[in-house]
Amino acid sequence: MTLDNISYSQALELCLKNAKPINTTENIFINKALNRILAKDIIAKRDAPAFTNSAMDGFAFKHSDIKKLKVIKTIYAGDKYKDFEIKENDCVRIMTGAKVPSTLDTVIPIEKCEEVNEDYIVIPEIKKGANVRLKGEEIRKGDILIKKGEVVTPNIIAMLASQGIVNIQVYRNLKIAILSTGNELKEPWEEAGDDEIYNTNSYAIAALLKNFGFSADIIGVIPDSLEKTTEYIKELKNSYDVIITSGGISFGDADFLYEAYIKNGLKPLFHGIMVKPGRPTMAGIMDNTFVFAMPGNPLSAYINAFCLIIPTLRKLNGAAKYYFQTINAINKSEFKLNPKKDHTILGYYENGVWEVYNNYKYGSSMLSALVNSNSLTIINKGKKEVEKGEKLKIYLF
Amino acid sequence: MTLDNISYSQALELCLKNAKPINTTENIFINKALNRILAKDIIAKRDAPAFTNSAMDGFAFKHSDIKKLKVIKTIYAGDKYKDFEIKENDCVRIMTGAKVPSTLDTVIPIEKCEEVNEDYIVIPEIKKGANVRLKGEEIRKGDILIKKGEVVTPNIIAMLASQGIVNIQVYRNLKIAILSTGNELKEPWEEAGDDEIYNTNSYAIAALLKNFGFSADIIGVIPDSLEKTTEYIKELKNSYDVIITSGGISFGDADFLYEAYIKNGLKPLFHGIMVKPGRPTMAGIMDNTFVFAMPGNPLSAYINAFCLIIPTLRKLNGAAKYYFQTINAINKSEFKLNPKKDHTILGYYENGVWEVYNNYKYGSSMLSALVNSNSLTIINKGKKEVEKGEKLKIYLF
Repeated sequence: MTLDNISYSQALELCLKNAKPINTTENIFINKALNRILAKDIIAKRDAPAFTNSAMDGFAFKHSDIKKLKVIKTIYAGDKYKDFEIKENDCVRIMTGAKVPSTLDTVIPIEKCEEVNEDYIVIPEIKKGANVRLKGEEIRKGDILIKKGEVVTPNIIAMLASQGIVNIQVYRNLKIAILSTGNELKEPWEEAGDDEIYNTNSYAIAALLKNFGFSADIIGVIPDSLEKTTEYIKELKNSYDVIITSGGISFGDADFLYEAYIKNGLKPLFHGIMVKPGRPTMAGIMDNTFVFAMPGNPLSAYINAFCLIIPTLRKLNGAAKYYFQTINAINKSEFKLNPKKDHTILGYYENGVWEVYNNYKYGSSMLSALVNSNSLTIINKGKKEVEKGEKLKIYLF
Repeated sequence: MTLDNISYSQALELCLKNAKPINTTENIFINKALNRILAKDIIAKRDAPAFTNSAMDGFAFKHSDIKKLKVIKTIYAGDKYKDFEIKENDCVRIMTGAKVPSTLDTVIPIEKCEEVNEDYIVIPEIKKGANVRLKGEEIRKGDILIKKGEVVTPNIIAMLASQGIVNIQVYRNLKIAILSTGNELKEPWEEAGDDEIYNTNSYAIAALLKNFGFSADIIGVIPDSLEKTTEYIKELKNSYDVIITSGGISFGDADFLYEAYIKNGLKPLFHGIMVKPGRPTMAGIMDNTFVFAMPGNPLSAYINAFCLIIPTLRKLNGAAKYYFQTINAINKSEFKLNPKKDHTILGYYENGVWEVYNNYKYGSSMLSALVNSNSLTIINKGKKEVEKGEKLKIYLF
């Protein structure tokens, strides 16, 4: 039995194609809505502006009037008033955001007046309608403001607050379990001897997910026996939408996690990707639970979690856009590749230029590469080298 | 009295120059460390790898031995053992991550062997030291792993966990108060009449700050009287590192927030920026509290909070890097500008191309512009238009 040889992009597409969005929703208050995914279009509750108002501190007047105007009143932002009499050649002092009387149509800012006195002002030519924001000119009540499937950003929260929309319907949070395998692992707060290593992947992947708005439970290290692991996975699949493990799915003798998954009904989408690093990676569906089995090596596990898991979680959680935004960069220094594989390569992006970490000479367990990189690029197989000056697509962490 | 005319970049530099980092620190557990700022260098607690181990599932042997090797034992990841006798032309089966016996120096992966039997294997030529990760080859105990002032990313959490470093020293969180001014404001959950508007800025700015790892208290709308406001600000400055208000600092009659600040000892760094939108913006220091007074217009307030407040908060909180990472893009369609001002302009970035929102024809209160943009660009004064194909520096939200 050997690992599959599918390409990295095939692996991602298989994950996305088989990620069926959850449809359970909940209502939340806007204070808690950041990074949640809208389960329903947001419809405008009111016109914007809600009333015709002044865009400047100045004087509101009727454009057809003459150049010398009598100041009869001051209107402040927030002032509520019924229509009052405004005669020919009358004007009102008005503050930014204050409601413009319905018979007036233009506002001149104080600093543009030719003369300003207690009682009258003299004004130059100005365009009719200047500095007046008309009711509904931006948004009409009933308009679709934001589409279902959008991630709630601070920009969207601004819009929601301005509309007085405080309860929104979002998809519930995904329930995600993170586990590691292997007797060799110590938890980071335990004492580890020189021949022991720490459970890195659980904490790294949980932090990565958190950074993208997902919350995961760190379940710990699963036991090193097929029977116990099978039982463990069985319990977990009833409680979680997503199970993420790392290690245990190569075909080494102690790698029985794969078998435990299969015994629990897992249908693998792929088991092995022809990529460096991170070949022993599997994804699949086990009843209603999506399974990601990452490599044991922390660097590979982290990169694959970023590239494969994050977009898939977005889709599972109902997001309409789930691919990463890439940016273009120029490659700073040449590096060599094995043309038989796809590659995910760490590096540093700055001012349009990207530089590979350590000339692409780092191992798949070297976390220094991760700490000293702010981005990665994906190179498809068939290339022996990436030349200086080549254009690359970069994924920023 | 008129507003200052400093440039947008001067405004930012004045904020940054005067932002003195707090020096109170606290210890936190890595689970809670995401986006906090390191107050102390992280020093390696152990070598990485911690022990010499196999990079592959395969066979470990002494490179000087012959091509047919006797398999005497299997070593799994996590196996702890004392040195045992390994004779000439003996080898051990070994799993990825398992400790390599001290007398062996090379690992051959199973799939590269010419012959594999129960008892012996036949191997081809392979480089001495291949597939062996040497103790300490990546990190030496005592190395500086991560510098003070770095923001804790998931990448860094991976490194910390792998080192068994669970408690880290970070700067305490900034205490940030957000207020709005103006009788005209209703809270978003209140009923607003057609002539009333909602408190948008507090919620928008709080969400923006949260997205960058800062946590702020929304204090509400301050009263529309100089005396009460002065008292209010006095109480707040004793409890908060940063006060963010919006509105109330133009020179309209009802704009007495500025006066309330001055009465409380505020030393303004600037009061007015020659930028569109967002001219009525002020920053200053009031005893030990940094004050940001944003425009009342939600769009201007939001953009200035992004461009000016976020970098300043980063510096106040001890971050060594506080400027935004910009990306390069090609301008998609021409638009015109007022050459007398700097401009912060909303638009949409995709695949290296940036397009201004609505041909740069949107008002400073139009939140639709924000919802339909994913980025902004800053154009300094002196330009009448930005041409199609021009190179721009883009700030992604």
